[in-house]
Amino acid sequence: MKERDFIRKICSRIGFPPSIPVGPGDDLAVLDIPAGKMVFGIDSITEGIDFYPNESPDAPSPISVGRKAALVNLSDIAAMGAEPFCMVASATIRKGLPDDYLQGIYAGLLSVEKQYGLYLVGGDITASTGPTTLTVAVLGSSPYKQLLRSGALPGDYLFVTGVLGGSILGKHLEFAPRIAEGLYLAKTGLAESCIDISDGLSTDARHIAEMSNVNIDITETAIPVSGDAFALSGKDGKSALYHAINDGEDFELLFTVRRDNASRIIKEWPFETPLTMIGSVREPDAGEQPGGVFIIGPEGREPLPDKGYEHEI
Amino acid sequence: MKERDFIRKICSRIGFPPSIPVGPGDDLAVLDIPAGKMVFGIDSITEGIDFYPNESPDAPSPISVGRKAALVNLSDIAAMGAEPFCMVASATIRKGLPDDYLQGIYAGLLSVEKQYGLYLVGGDITASTGPTTLTVAVLGSSPYKQLLRSGALPGDYLFVTGVLGGSILGKHLEFAPRIAEGLYLAKTGLAESCIDISDGLSTDARHIAEMSNVNIDITETAIPVSGDAFALSGKDGKSALYHAINDGEDFELLFTVRRDNASRIIKEWPFETPLTMIGSVREPDAGEQPGGVFIIGPEGREPLPDKGYEHEI
Repeated sequence: MKERDFIRKICSRIGFPPSIPVGPGDDLAVLDIPAGKMVFGIDSITEGIDFYPNESPDAPSPISVGRKAALVNLSDIAAMGAEPFCMVASATIRKGLPDDYLQGIYAGLLSVEKQYGLYLVGGDITASTGPTTLTVAVLGSSPYKQLLRSGALPGDYLFVTGVLGGSILGKHLEFAPRIAEGLYLAKTGLAESCIDISDGLSTDARHIAEMSNVNIDITETAIPVSGDAFALSGKDGKSALYHAINDGEDFELLFTVRRDNASRIIKEWPFETPLTMIGSVREPDAGEQPGGVFIIGPEGREPLPDKGYEHEI
Repeated sequence: MKERDFIRKICSRIGFPPSIPVGPGDDLAVLDIPAGKMVFGIDSITEGIDFYPNESPDAPSPISVGRKAALVNLSDIAAMGAEPFCMVASATIRKGLPDDYLQGIYAGLLSVEKQYGLYLVGGDITASTGPTTLTVAVLGSSPYKQLLRSGALPGDYLFVTGVLGGSILGKHLEFAPRIAEGLYLAKTGLAESCIDISDGLSTDARHIAEMSNVNIDITETAIPVSGDAFALSGKDGKSALYHAINDGEDFELLFTVRRDNASRIIKEWPFETPLTMIGSVREPDAGEQPGGVFIIGPEGREPLPDKGYEHEI
């Protein structure tokens, strides 16, 4: 299929809201935006790194690939306490993939559009001699407080949504971005700092600690461990707790709450999504640097090594 | 270099305007936007397709690669008659490239930031087993009329900025996006439709014809042919005119102007950038489909074959 024919198909879509007077098909989309705060970012997923290659028995469908590319960005919108608005997508497709692979990717993007109201307003398609890469940039509107990584203060409690670990068994591909939960935290003002867990609890807790210039203690027994973490533990011999702390791609929200608000959020939490208090925020002890994450286990408090996933480049 | 160390370096930049309260370093950037129209889009460049591989004798510096990724998006902003605001960038870096390659790419992006005020507010870095791909998404503000591809009417004249052809000799990599010219066309209201020439005059004129449901006649002798088109003609035996019509990546503006305004724009054009009237817009003749582009040469009018660059996927 020629790029142009496919683009025509995407561009012929209708039904955009008045805030998107021009959708895909021109040099750029035109947005009509009320005054206020917006959030803006970009994230890529690459074959062989973020999803199994197409020849692999575990290869996801192209629809799942398209969905994941949009969902990881929605998780960032959730972590900011913002609302989905629109996205643009750039697909670099490995040569030799069947024609319908590209269409599957876009079907995945369009299913997220429909489900979350994150309108696909533009894109770019390139052939590649290498792996397939899908890049999505998102815009969200942010009518309430913006949940930054830098708002944690000594005395805060650390909370997490959902259960952690073992996402490679499925959740890394198909998950529910915590949009409603993030908006609730922003609207109520209950969260002081927030991040979504993409690199792993250990690494993402460190992001909050570093940006907030504090240290964080996590209580080992409090960490909500997923069934998939136990299942993976049975396969590879690492503990389920290890997976919960280090696997990443949980796409849950990790956030801090002022001590005075802790009982209120536990009592008033209006979602079925589990909410767990797993730790607390403190000033560095004498001789300690800020930006550290510690785990409180049977042998007392020790630094939590940063084994979360990180690209080595 | 670890991804995180490099990201830290990028995130430590300061000096953003008040419209960007949170730059890179959080889950997403935060923008503070006045009510009004914005333009939004995305474009990728890939090693081996949009620039020579790093091992090639013609390989561009990583700084040029970073610049091109931003400049092609600025050219889209120009074609909409909009102003640069901010960008996010996703780099997929081929494994084995030296550490400073990535830094060169970002140096290129930051040089465009400085030159055009297109702030880099976020990004993503991935390693790849395949070629390097750099994707940039841009936001522009659009205080005047938005210059769409669909505004051409029968009777309009067709204009082009600059000179065309032979961009592979250098201009495809380093060029001046026609931001000021696009803003002038939007502010004065003189252009009725507009596109930037990335795929080639023949293909991009067809985009206007198709979106406007008209036919376009181009006068062969009026096309401004670049010195590089002649230089390339001397090497490959194709005519300079062929290169001017088909090469693409000229990043000039192609636009239509109402007949009544044609003499005014020629007289009042305030830029050193050449401005040339190269054709006109008409209704399809009896039996013709709209969306066609024709060339008027020594043997009369004939359909202009669409040989501009198109990715075969």
